Amino acid sequence: MSIQKPTLPKGTRDFGPQVMAKRNYILDTIKSTFKLFGFQQLETPSMENLSVLTGKYGDEGDQLLYKILNSGDFLKKVTAEKLSKGSNAVLPLVAEKGLRYDLTVPFARYVVMNRNDITFPFKRFQIQPVWRADRPQRGRYREFYQCDADVVGTDSLVCEAEIILMIKRVFSELKLNDYSIKINNRKILTGISEVIGEPGRESDLCVSIDKLDKIGWEKVREELEQKGFSEASIEKLGPIIDMGSKDKFEFLQIFLASSEVGLQGLNELREVFDLLGSFKEDEEFVDFDVVLARGLSYYTGAIFEVKVNNVSIGSVSGGGRYDNLTGVFGLEGVSGVGFSFGVDRLYDVLEELELFPEESLKSTTLMVAHFGEDALSHGLNVLTEARKLGISAEIFPDDAKMKKQFNYADKKNIPFVIIIGSEEIKSGEVTLKNMESGEQRQMGLQEALKQIKQSV
Amino acid sequence: MSIQKPTLPKGTRDFGPQVMAKRNYILDTIKSTFKLFGFQQLETPSMENLSVLTGKYGDEGDQLLYKILNSGDFLKKVTAEKLSKGSNAVLPLVAEKGLRYDLTVPFARYVVMNRNDITFPFKRFQIQPVWRADRPQRGRYREFYQCDADVVGTDSLVCEAEIILMIKRVFSELKLNDYSIKINNRKILTGISEVIGEPGRESDLCVSIDKLDKIGWEKVREELEQKGFSEASIEKLGPIIDMGSKDKFEFLQIFLASSEVGLQGLNELREVFDLLGSFKEDEEFVDFDVVLARGLSYYTGAIFEVKVNNVSIGSVSGGGRYDNLTGVFGLEGVSGVGFSFGVDRLYDVLEELELFPEESLKSTTLMVAHFGEDALSHGLNVLTEARKLGISAEIFPDDAKMKKQFNYADKKNIPFVIIIGSEEIKSGEVTLKNMESGEQRQMGLQEALKQIKQSV
Repeated sequence: MSIQKPTLPKGTRDFGPQVMAKRNYILDTIKSTFKLFGFQQLETPSMENLSVLTGKYGDEGDQLLYKILNSGDFLKKVTAEKLSKGSNAVLPLVAEKGLRYDLTVPFARYVVMNRNDITFPFKRFQIQPVWRADRPQRGRYREFYQCDADVVGTDSLVCEAEIILMIKRVFSELKLNDYSIKINNRKILTGISEVIGEPGRESDLCVSIDKLDKIGWEKVREELEQKGFSEASIEKLGPIIDMGSKDKFEFLQIFLASSEVGLQGLNELREVFDLLGSFKEDEEFVDFDVVLARGLSYYTGAIFEVKVNNVSIGSVSGGGRYDNLTGVFGLEGVSGVGFSFGVDRLYDVLEELELFPEESLKSTTLMVAHFGEDALSHGLNVLTEARKLGISAEIFPDDAKMKKQFNYADKKNIPFVIIIGSEEIKSGEVTLKNMESGEQRQMGLQEALKQIKQSV
Repeated sequence: MSIQKPTLPKGTRDFGPQVMAKRNYILDTIKSTFKLFGFQQLETPSMENLSVLTGKYGDEGDQLLYKILNSGDFLKKVTAEKLSKGSNAVLPLVAEKGLRYDLTVPFARYVVMNRNDITFPFKRFQIQPVWRADRPQRGRYREFYQCDADVVGTDSLVCEAEIILMIKRVFSELKLNDYSIKINNRKILTGISEVIGEPGRESDLCVSIDKLDKIGWEKVREELEQKGFSEASIEKLGPIIDMGSKDKFEFLQIFLASSEVGLQGLNELREVFDLLGSFKEDEEFVDFDVVLARGLSYYTGAIFEVKVNNVSIGSVSGGGRYDNLTGVFGLEGVSGVGFSFGVDRLYDVLEELELFPEESLKSTTLMVAHFGEDALSHGLNVLTEARKLGISAEIFPDDAKMKKQFNYADKKNIPFVIIIGSEEIKSGEVTLKNMESGEQRQMGLQEALKQIKQSV
């Protein structure tokens, strides 16, 4: 076999030790928050039957699904005639399975398949990779992690309030202080479309309004005109766009007076704010944003989006309430609310703001360096004693110059080195070096370990 | 769209909350041990280029690789003529990527691609799923986790000793006490094949001897005869098989006297035992098993296998030293040693021995139950206070009968419930119920939280 230079598939990444440590810092923070709020972990297989995946993400989504070639003689059902009909006709003959595209559809499948064993309301979180055959570009990968939490089987607005509190806790733990949680309700958007005289067109309206931040009102206006919204309707939308810092609830109570569903959305939103009050949590960080729409069309109630301020990437988390998660699999009436943290984006934000704590970058706490073979075997007992105390420890395994051993400790960001040489063997003491301060001192082993233990 | 009954692909599994909690108990134990020994985490993509995967696992392995269909018009290079040549000829035209088959080849690829940035010796661990298009059967899945740790870039036998200590620690943490770590050295097997007069045939010898436990000496003997081993050679093998509890080192020192490589293997093994002594760790649990061979042919030095005694599934972990991990990718001389925990098997063993601790099955610590709407909003503050103390807590989000709320707590294995009703609102106290003892008492909120905190 000839030797090839190994490569990585486009749009995929290795996560080396440094990056993994940082990613784990984020994921552990999120996980511990989910657990603190009573969510339980679920994992589903990477492979799903294409019958489960296809048709759930729109035509574009179907194109972006990774399909797995059937095993063995995958062509056995493909005739020349079938071949002449092209890839779309041949696909079902050669591929039965695909890779997970998101965590929501597998979750819905799981709920339907296990409906008799699940105790509802079911609070689940799921942190797993998903795959999309998208064009790779900066910040967009073909394999990336999603990090979802959902509550299904209840329409209690307590869940909405809890989600906001979870987001808040994660950000506070990550020392991210300058951010805002935007919240809206899809029913308010429905109400607005009724009031402006374009009932039932909230989807079109939402898609356009969603771009307001990016392209501005004039462009949104043009787009709405192109979509056939009447000038009168667009005119009526004006006050909403200009609403600014007026009391939004007061304003919308009047604006939506003629729309039952709009008022219902407004009431739901008001209740979420009231519930936040009952939690005795400061609600200032939550911003009612009446033009927040988000692209996904399956939200039916609350809609969330979290933006970090003053960084190049803004939106790092989002979600909302949906009324019919599992209908597509034959189980009606399962309402739920969920949201998703963008791990890659949070990573970039923490990197940009230099918020990864130093501890998250440390690997081993202690390395044992040694002169000569006797010193090595002497050093092994140091490892045993250190690990007994829970201090992560390693020894440089080869006979090597001190410089090389210290270089290793340095590169691996190890904060303490214990040095063993003939002198240490004779005296029964060890030399402890603090790699940050450079300070170096001889002492008894237990004393050295005590000092290390205290400083981590 | 018609509604289909959703299904799971054969050989794959969902891991619901209970199973996840147990799996995490195992994986967290392994991870913390890896870290304690200075190993760092690596993750590689699920998808690899087929050029990286193909040819690394033998012909059978190539068949078991899952291939991913190229995106878009995957047939564009497939002519009717190509089609007539069958699946193997068409495969390279329709699939460029495959799913990870193990963690070793991606690790080797990573080392080669990042050789200039890695500080050697490189101690990495990796816990990720792998995929094999194998026939599913009890205990064999098409998607399963591997859990590997390797040290590369050193041939120090300290690494072998450390691996044994890691295995020992994991088992001790999992309260698995009745097990044995078998160790051998591939060079001893090479030496034996030299001594019996079949030099260079250690691969054939190993494959057969590996089955000794399963099929017995007579069958192994037959197999060796079929493979063309002379009767004289097989006769010479006899004392090895019968060696029993003799001092193996003493015996082999004589048996292997004429084989340089055999003696080298014996010395290496002796040094590993000496090093274990220097760690001041009891080495009784390590069993030098001269017929331990393991199937994989790429081991060149130490070979490990861990067996749990008195359970239906035995071998739960294995590994060894290899001299040339990365040669296939053009980087020669990278020696390493590693091993792998079988997570699914450990799971089954702990289940069989009922060793999962109760704590590993608990989810939320506290549920707030409530009568009526006022009580619900009153209860939200209880959540806030509990979470401040790090107590995982949730509230039943709907107005529901007490029975339903308690049923939920019960099913979710929640040990404490705080009950809020009109009486509690009036008195400012709460009712704390211990779900295990059934005991129920009224007290101040902080006192209740203190009691909960103390008992977890």
